[in-house]
Amino acid sequence: MKILEMHVTPIAISDPPLLNAAGLHAPYALRTIVELVSDDGLYGVGEVPGGASITAWLEQCRSHLLGQDPFQLNAIAETLKTRLGGRINPRHLALVQSAIEVACFDLMGKAVNRPVVDLLGGKTRDQVDFAAYLFYKYEGVGGALGFKTRDNAQGWGAARGAEALDAKGIVDQAKAMCEAYGFKSLKLKGGVFPPEEEVEAMFALSDAFGPDTPLRLDPNAIWSLETSITWGKRLEGVLEYYEDPVRTQEAMAELAKNVSLPLATNMCTTSFADIPGAMKLGSEAIILSDHHYWGGLRATLDLGRICQTFGRGLSMHSNSHVGISLAAMVHVGAALPYLSYACDTHYPWQYEDVVTKPLEFIDGAIKVPDSPGLGVELDRDSLAALHETYKNCGLDERNDELAMQVKQPGWRFAATRW
Amino acid sequence: MKILEMHVTPIAISDPPLLNAAGLHAPYALRTIVELVSDDGLYGVGEVPGGASITAWLEQCRSHLLGQDPFQLNAIAETLKTRLGGRINPRHLALVQSAIEVACFDLMGKAVNRPVVDLLGGKTRDQVDFAAYLFYKYEGVGGALGFKTRDNAQGWGAARGAEALDAKGIVDQAKAMCEAYGFKSLKLKGGVFPPEEEVEAMFALSDAFGPDTPLRLDPNAIWSLETSITWGKRLEGVLEYYEDPVRTQEAMAELAKNVSLPLATNMCTTSFADIPGAMKLGSEAIILSDHHYWGGLRATLDLGRICQTFGRGLSMHSNSHVGISLAAMVHVGAALPYLSYACDTHYPWQYEDVVTKPLEFIDGAIKVPDSPGLGVELDRDSLAALHETYKNCGLDERNDELAMQVKQPGWRFAATRW
Repeated sequence: MKILEMHVTPIAISDPPLLNAAGLHAPYALRTIVELVSDDGLYGVGEVPGGASITAWLEQCRSHLLGQDPFQLNAIAETLKTRLGGRINPRHLALVQSAIEVACFDLMGKAVNRPVVDLLGGKTRDQVDFAAYLFYKYEGVGGALGFKTRDNAQGWGAARGAEALDAKGIVDQAKAMCEAYGFKSLKLKGGVFPPEEEVEAMFALSDAFGPDTPLRLDPNAIWSLETSITWGKRLEGVLEYYEDPVRTQEAMAELAKNVSLPLATNMCTTSFADIPGAMKLGSEAIILSDHHYWGGLRATLDLGRICQTFGRGLSMHSNSHVGISLAAMVHVGAALPYLSYACDTHYPWQYEDVVTKPLEFIDGAIKVPDSPGLGVELDRDSLAALHETYKNCGLDERNDELAMQVKQPGWRFAATRW
Repeated sequence: MKILEMHVTPIAISDPPLLNAAGLHAPYALRTIVELVSDDGLYGVGEVPGGASITAWLEQCRSHLLGQDPFQLNAIAETLKTRLGGRINPRHLALVQSAIEVACFDLMGKAVNRPVVDLLGGKTRDQVDFAAYLFYKYEGVGGALGFKTRDNAQGWGAARGAEALDAKGIVDQAKAMCEAYGFKSLKLKGGVFPPEEEVEAMFALSDAFGPDTPLRLDPNAIWSLETSITWGKRLEGVLEYYEDPVRTQEAMAELAKNVSLPLATNMCTTSFADIPGAMKLGSEAIILSDHHYWGGLRATLDLGRICQTFGRGLSMHSNSHVGISLAAMVHVGAALPYLSYACDTHYPWQYEDVVTKPLEFIDGAIKVPDSPGLGVELDRDSLAALHETYKNCGLDERNDELAMQVKQPGWRFAATRW
């Protein structure tokens, strides 16, 4: 089995005006889709956070991939590392490896007539739980160029466009999202308003959903250690975990000594190179995996084993994404014996897609597909349309600070705001 | 694909009178062979250190395995852990999991017409290097019941039976073994004679083979910390690594502060539960994997990632074994991006086997098979004959102390002898 063709397609999908510590989501989120075509007429797909740089790096991989056997994941990874490694930064290299590895797994699964999960050790669960990902937001659903491709059967209608700038708005958003998707855990992206307002929102969610609904707050590392301790103590007994209130492993370790809440991270410990420090300092109790940033599905399994070995919990991080990433998250999530929390996903916020039949949430979970490969098929018309959006949308890298300045002229990101 | 039959066959293979810190190898080494037969007429095999206990535990797995899909490794492992875990000790559980996982991989490879290495991420190398495993020994090749099944083309003739009780004997053994197999690294199993004699043997090997031949000494944890420091300093510049001179991670960590030689272990850090302590203490620079004891091929890959993540080297441990284990070691060794040393193997000491065509050493390495599964086929006549040996040899568990007492009445194992 040989790779004959590689197609790299940057796309832009409509993204609502979601607020975070870095600013505001622009009207379009950027993803890059990789398609590998094999000599037996199969194709495999991968998806990563997009933009011009990652697309250019992926284009540079083509000559190293054509003629390779997709089962040779180690050789492919080593070739890419050798050929790109001297010039590419490690974060981009992990994204490149991830996109290509997922596409290879899709091909491998199709070749052996097995779902990808079966090439990762098989299912440890039949379905993967996800959490409702709540955002402070302005009114609107993003986009403007008019492409709508996602089967909207599972949409949450007008509520997706509603403004949410206070505790009541967040509770209303949570109710609408949970009604549509059945999520049983709630995560609020914080770091937007002063801590007392965000903590108020968490208490409001707790009141509205009751004490059995796991809640998480993610201030995106924009709080000081002192602020994090003060509000962390208030949130004891309310939160399931407290995600990245501060920046750096050292600050997380200090925070851990002062609050009883489990600390989680996808900002302080973000690669294998960060693991020894995390274990030495005891900085976090839970690590949020992300196959895009850690280098692929196998790397995610490795991270799971490391977490289990060192007594850390494992959860999963997300960015705005379409159905290919969701399918990959489901397959690896189903294979992970150590996954201990409902995963993050931005998916309900997107209403455009590149797959013909998106995986569907039932009771907040997605059933692992039984069909060969990832279990999704490329919708080539949508892919072409969303690539047109990319070319026309005026964005080629994510920049939440710039997007925010459109709404609030002069707004500046601050590493520590409160 | 479903598992229809499971056959568990304890065997005894002729084993030479090799000396170690625990005593002497008995005339037979015990292994247990697992065969799984699937509903599509394929079979897969696994092999682990044998004897009555492990055989009985494996027999207890049958009812939990029949009807299962061999691709569902996670589900199978979880089932076995749940069903046996409360009663079986963790070491036996890892052996059971390993035997069954390897047999499943052999089945999976045959089902998809791929070598096992391709289900582990593919080759990172075309061949796996092994080291000459040197032993002090009495004269003889072990056995007595007369079954000889190994294709002896690659044997090393009379030299395999020669006595080796001093530096000259070890050098002669090394020369004969390297001439037959082409090994380029040498390991001496020590812990047998007073340290000065074993160190003398290492210097003799260094003189005979030159400074470019990597040398290792393994006193099997029978030296005191003080003795290990004294002789470790003498061996600086001579050894590639210094394997388990002392017992416990704490003693290894203390030793590491006092000698510049890299320390290696398969006795102080032997399971994932031991990893946090090893990393905290900095007890060893190199961990010897062993898919039998760490729970399988996937667990070995996980251990490799942990070693890479924490800047530790990875090598491979061995016991007396036949061709199934050797094939599994080659497949996983080929898939491990982090394998940094030539692997141990006892294989040249065995001259009986259960496979029709053993993998062959060329220049001290074994080429990774390209045929489906492990790339070895069961020789059912030999398996039956070696099972007869098991029933008739009078041994049902390994006990090197007892075997030694036959030669030296009253000999007793000492945890620390020098």
